Amino acid sequence: MKASVLKENLAKALSVAGRVVSTRGSLEILSHIMVSTEKGRMRISATNLEIGINYWIGGKIEKEGDITIPARLFTDVVNSISSEKIDISIEEMDVKIKSENDNLSIKGVSAEEFPLIPSIKGEPLLVINSGILKDALNLVNFAAALDEARPVLSGIYFNLDGDNLILAATDSYRLAEKKIKLEVKSTNKKEIIIPAKTMIELSRILSDLDEDIKIYIDDNQVLFAAKDIEFTSRLIEGQFPNYQQIIPGENETKAIINSNEFSNAIKVATLFSRESANSINIFIKSKGEVEIKAISSQIGESDTVIKAEIIGKDGEISFNGKYLLDVLTNLKSPKVSFEMSGKLSPGTIKSEKNDDYVYIIMPLRS
Amino acid sequence: MKASVLKENLAKALSVAGRVVSTRGSLEILSHIMVSTEKGRMRISATNLEIGINYWIGGKIEKEGDITIPARLFTDVVNSISSEKIDISIEEMDVKIKSENDNLSIKGVSAEEFPLIPSIKGEPLLVINSGILKDALNLVNFAAALDEARPVLSGIYFNLDGDNLILAATDSYRLAEKKIKLEVKSTNKKEIIIPAKTMIELSRILSDLDEDIKIYIDDNQVLFAAKDIEFTSRLIEGQFPNYQQIIPGENETKAIINSNEFSNAIKVATLFSRESANSINIFIKSKGEVEIKAISSQIGESDTVIKAEIIGKDGEISFNGKYLLDVLTNLKSPKVSFEMSGKLSPGTIKSEKNDDYVYIIMPLRS
Repeated sequence: MKASVLKENLAKALSVAGRVVSTRGSLEILSHIMVSTEKGRMRISATNLEIGINYWIGGKIEKEGDITIPARLFTDVVNSISSEKIDISIEEMDVKIKSENDNLSIKGVSAEEFPLIPSIKGEPLLVINSGILKDALNLVNFAAALDEARPVLSGIYFNLDGDNLILAATDSYRLAEKKIKLEVKSTNKKEIIIPAKTMIELSRILSDLDEDIKIYIDDNQVLFAAKDIEFTSRLIEGQFPNYQQIIPGENETKAIINSNEFSNAIKVATLFSRESANSINIFIKSKGEVEIKAISSQIGESDTVIKAEIIGKDGEISFNGKYLLDVLTNLKSPKVSFEMSGKLSPGTIKSEKNDDYVYIIMPLRS
Repeated sequence: MKASVLKENLAKALSVAGRVVSTRGSLEILSHIMVSTEKGRMRISATNLEIGINYWIGGKIEKEGDITIPARLFTDVVNSISSEKIDISIEEMDVKIKSENDNLSIKGVSAEEFPLIPSIKGEPLLVINSGILKDALNLVNFAAALDEARPVLSGIYFNLDGDNLILAATDSYRLAEKKIKLEVKSTNKKEIIIPAKTMIELSRILSDLDEDIKIYIDDNQVLFAAKDIEFTSRLIEGQFPNYQQIIPGENETKAIINSNEFSNAIKVATLFSRESANSINIFIKSKGEVEIKAISSQIGESDTVIKAEIIGKDGEISFNGKYLLDVLTNLKSPKVSFEMSGKLSPGTIKSEKNDDYVYIIMPLRS
């Protein structure tokens, strides 16, 4: 290989691909980045066997080639170099890196040792804007289970039904569902489950993009393709729970609450609920108030009252405060609608105006 | 106690005082902040027995009083409250915190249990601008020993000699000395050693200030007094090494180097010198170049050449690259003067223009 690239582009590619590099683990090759050339561009690849990333950058390619390099060292080296342009070449198994002042040599490992990052052929199943996908993922990712005791619960459910894409996640204590009306029409139908860990990484990558993402699916993997980045993930096998049945219909009590005030009140209460697994008590009062309380025998107690528009009768319920903070942090709506029907039924949070998102929390017995 | 303060002021005081709060340790009271009233202001105090901080904030004091509160919880609570004004009162051992929406109660502990933060009476020994003191500390703090095997080496030497204040530190591998010409005249003479750990904290606090700092010293402590903050530290007993003798006079080789380029070159080299305890090789060439090399049998090698103005003969020397980075990061001078006399004598770094700072590094035998 003999190639020239801009430091800025290479550093960006390494910071994105570097996120999936395994720093500890049995397979040393997974701590490497693969550098290769393809159709006049340089390709930076990384995989942890669950996620694969290919990142292409432009440059001047004089000679094709490929090799793998320790990811951390390569990234640190590129970030420390001060010149704008970096020349990379391979001599046997040594990667030669030249900048204006520097003549560096890093011992590489043959690209043949690197796991193949699978690619998917054919037509995309759907096309979606990167920002819309990112916002949707951020509204469901936190509701997935962190452990993999029941694998399907550690995943995000993608349900494509023609022009509608539905994302959902549940750890059995709470459920989040987001519906997206696709702008690019589709007639396909498909249901898959993708690891939530993977989708958290995808969401981070999408934050920097503003373009259409093509999604390809085959039997055991999914590929998200941007212009210069391909992101591949394994799928989770199994049947996602039939969660529709637990979404309540009409509720007895409804409060329209300022999101910031609600969020601050929950934050204060959770400081006093550490002993009791974040259990906080919410009282909805038809006189136009929501009261949030937490009591700790050791450290003290909190009592916060905020004004709200109340529809229906008084209500009282206990929740894990962290579950409420998760949704209030991500739901970008100035006001939220909080609904409930007695202390034993699940509570519901929606944004005030849109009905394309619903978040259900199971109550705690207090 | 019954007092009203602005949330912003209280949060600021807690973030400063919180830095010395012990989160782990045998004495639980040291994880608390003391809140008291004094002459119409509220005083926030914290100590780890080595450092003591008093931070005064204005407010409306209706009733005097004092108590201690778990620092972490109190800080989190104040940061989570959304209103501008906070009312604090004490009812028995409970601290009542009221904001626009919140009614909180935190269990406190009597202020009598809190260690006394010593105060020093009398006239200040010297007065110095906060920015000048901070910059000087940042040029010597890193050269002190991290361990306390020889206590005096873990400290910063303060030598007041009339209008000159000299700060110095050495871990026996390198030495930093900074001279300050005092603007506020003094006729005092005094030598003390203050723990470097303490001075790192002081430097952080000084970053936010632009005012005169009065320094008071007694037998076993020093006090730095700003308008609203008093910072007390214990002193280290003992005699600081007579380091003047190791500062070289005229050197055989001198290079005037662009600080940024030098720093980047060292950064790159240290990436390749991890195996060899950061050992990097520097070659000064009278044709107008400085070459920096590092070799690792495992990961590869680096060779960086930067242009420089060379005075005197060629030179070659090995250093711990980290020691060079420490000074280049803190010495705010576009160019530095690097001087040496053979590979066995210590090297010297100064800023190009000022001779009020000198940094000496012992060479490595390569």
